[in-house]
Parts: sequence; structure tokens; C-alpha cells
Amino acid sequence: MDLKQDIKLAVDIVIFGYEERQLFVLLIKQKYGKYKGRWLLPGGFVKNKEGLKAAAIRELKEESGVVVDDLEQLFTFGDDVKRDHRGRVVTVSYFGTVKPSSMKLKAATDSIDAKWFTIESISDLPYDHNQIVETAFNRLKSKLNYQPIGFNLLSKKFPFSDLENLYMTILQSPIDRRNFRKKILSFDFLEETDELLSKGSGRPATLFKFNKKKYQSSLKRGINFEIKFA
Amino acid sequence: MDLKQDIKLAVDIVIFGYEERQLFVLLIKQKYGKYKGRWLLPGGFVKNKEGLKAAAIRELKEESGVVVDDLEQLFTFGDDVKRDHRGRVVTVSYFGTVKPSSMKLKAATDSIDAKWFTIESISDLPYDHNQIVETAFNRLKSKLNYQPIGFNLLSKKFPFSDLENLYMTILQSPIDRRNFRKKILSFDFLEETDELLSKGSGRPATLFKFNKKKYQSSLKRGINFEIKFA
Repeated sequence: MDLKQDIKLAVDIVIFGYEERQLFVLLIKQKYGKYKGRWLLPGGFVKNKEGLKAAAIRELKEESGVVVDDLEQLFTFGDDVKRDHRGRVVTVSYFGTVKPSSMKLKAATDSIDAKWFTIESISDLPYDHNQIVETAFNRLKSKLNYQPIGFNLLSKKFPFSDLENLYMTILQSPIDRRNFRKKILSFDFLEETDELLSKGSGRPATLFKFNKKKYQSSLKRGINFEIKFA
Repeated sequence: MDLKQDIKLAVDIVIFGYEERQLFVLLIKQKYGKYKGRWLLPGGFVKNKEGLKAAAIRELKEESGVVVDDLEQLFTFGDDVKRDHRGRVVTVSYFGTVKPSSMKLKAATDSIDAKWFTIESISDLPYDHNQIVETAFNRLKSKLNYQPIGFNLLSKKFPFSDLENLYMTILQSPIDRRNFRKKILSFDFLEETDELLSKGSGRPATLFKFNKKKYQSSLKRGINFEIKFA
């Protein structure tokens, strides 16, 4: 083993939330060090006998109270050897999506606060965290083209317009609603319920729900959910 | 800094080559240690003041003689804390494509030999290298759907059938040749030259070449090269 290697390994986590046509990113307020009091991404060092993803799930929970089943690996940042002022730190970034209203934020360990920020309001984050957020946002957008990502972002049952709004919010552009509806309903993972939602004076809207099992079994069969936007 | 962390950081590289309807993977023969004499992926430890991608480019060159301008980050393997018998090692994997006939293989440092193996002939590699190769192969296949990847795999000038064969070889299935041709030629990065290739008794074939500049400027303008296979 190369015993002279002196590189630390960390994880950083980008959690997206969606509520009322707004996309949010979860940040925590740093408790210690040079960036004490600054808002940044949850994250921290990997333990010696801890898997990378397990470290990300743990740090996220400790620093923000957010509990997720699964995170997706995003990118490992380590080309810039000076990205951390404390020494050489390479960070494996992860991202995930949750519904903010389903989570109670709770800071602990290295964090004194945790809060949702709209993606537009995030400006100057410490380290290369802006770049990490941007990379995650680009991944989220490109994922829309081949995977439905609404599972964790919407309520269990929702009117179709919620799904449309979610897509338009993330893509930051209008979509062809007719094509979108046709395409999405052609997949069998979105199911119509027999419940209606009455809102204001308009016609009550049918509520839909995702069938995660069907979706996952289709994924296993190699079905590619390509969704076109015009 | 968490001084008790004892995790080593490595890079591993999957290089794909293509020649005559065969897809190859570059392996090296290990010089030292438990896997002395075994074929595995080029790779090694990252130096303290060396970027991750730079480490991958260096290791590749040292162990196999293969020189690449650029490698793409694939995935960081570190969920299994026992993936390396020597202690905790997390590896950042990279992949790239080259034309085997344009490269002279030359082993050095930790490697005593370097050789191209057809992807079908790769069986039982040390560590989790089979998983790394599989991940790279899946990425290569999925990239075909949205990016032309022939740039580095074909000759500078090639008959259109070479491109078709390349795609069919990687996808391991036939493609709708008519649609494929129409689609590919609708992008402006593939140019017809005024040269012909005579092979056997058949009609001479027009040679094509890639215009990398046009391709890269289109990519920058956000053009998505979606290629459908039927």
C-alpha cells in the first residue's frame, strides 16, 4: 500500500425538494471551522468501515434530519487539489429527491440549522458547492428525459397538473401538455384513482398515483421511459 | 480534519477499443502482489497533489502505453469496504475509447504486459474489476442513444458501413439501417469526403469523416443527438 498518500475522502449531498411550483435545495448552517455560520451542502468524512452511500445517508440524517432510503451517486470532485482549504479532500457527491412537507428538518452534529432554499436563491456557497449543486441540477434535468422522477417529489395522490407543473418547474420552460399527458399515460406506472380533488370553482380533478412496483419491474425488463418535450 | 481516517484512494480505467466488428477492453498483467501475473484493469493510487483524472491518465500511460487526451468519470466504487484485500481502498473509475491500431501497447511500472481482450473473453478479473467493466459497458451502450461515440473508435475516414457495424457491435443487436443512416446524416458533424474506398468486387464506398469542431459547438449549443434504434 502506498503509505504516503494523504488524501481525505468525504461525501456531499444535494437534496432537491419541490413544493408549489418551486424547486428547493437543502442546505445546512455550518457549526465549526472557517465557514462557521455559512450555509452549505450537508456532508462530511467517510468512516473507515462505512460504505460511501451509507456515509452520505448518515451525514444527511445527522446534519439535517432528512431520512432517505436511497441516494444516487452524482460525481466525485477531486481534480482541483485545493478545493478544500484544510488539505486534500476528495468528495463523492450524491443526490436525492424528497417532499419537503414530509420531512421535519433537525440540525445536529456539525450543523446548527437546516433549511430549504429555492434554487434561484442559492448564490455564493463555500468550497465548490455551487458546482456540485449545478452538476446535480443538470443531472436532474437530463433524467427527466428518460426517467420519471416525480415519485418522491409529489404527494401520494395528485392531480395530473401537479406532475406537469413539476416538469415545467425543473425544466424552466413550458412543455407541450397534450403530448406530455399522452406519453406519461402510455406508461403503466401512473394510475388513475377514483378520487377527485376539488379546488376553487373549477371542475374537480382526478387524482393519480404512482405504482412504484410496476415502474421498477419495467426498469428491470429494460424499458426506457423516454419522455419527449416539444 | 478527521485524522483517524484510513482510506486509500485509487483510480481504475476501462479503455474500449474497436476493430473489425469486435469490441475490446484493455487489460494489463499485474507485476506485484497477490494478483501477480493476473490480467486486470490499469489503475493505481492517486498522488497527493494530483487531480483524479490526471491520475487516471498517468496510470493508463504508465501501465499500458496508451495515451488519451480525455477520460470520462464513470463511478466511484466504495460501498463494499472489503473490495481490496490490502485495506480500505475506494476507486474512482474512468473510461475512454481509442482505436487499438493507433496505439502501441507498452507495459511499465506495476505492469509486465498490456493487451486487448474481446469483451466476451473477459471472465474472472481480480477485485471488483468485472463490475467496473460491466458498468463501463452499460454506460457505453446508453451513450449511443444520445451521443455519437465513433470519433475515437474508427479510422479518420471510413465507409458508412463501418459506423453501422460499430453501433451493432456495441449494442449486440441489429439496427434499422435506413433510419440509422437518415438520423446520423441529419446531424452536421458527419461529412462526406470525395474519396472512395474500393473493397473486393462491390461498388466503391464513399468515405465519411467526423467534424469534431462542429460536433462540439453543437453540444455547447445544447443540441441533443438523439439516435433511435428500431
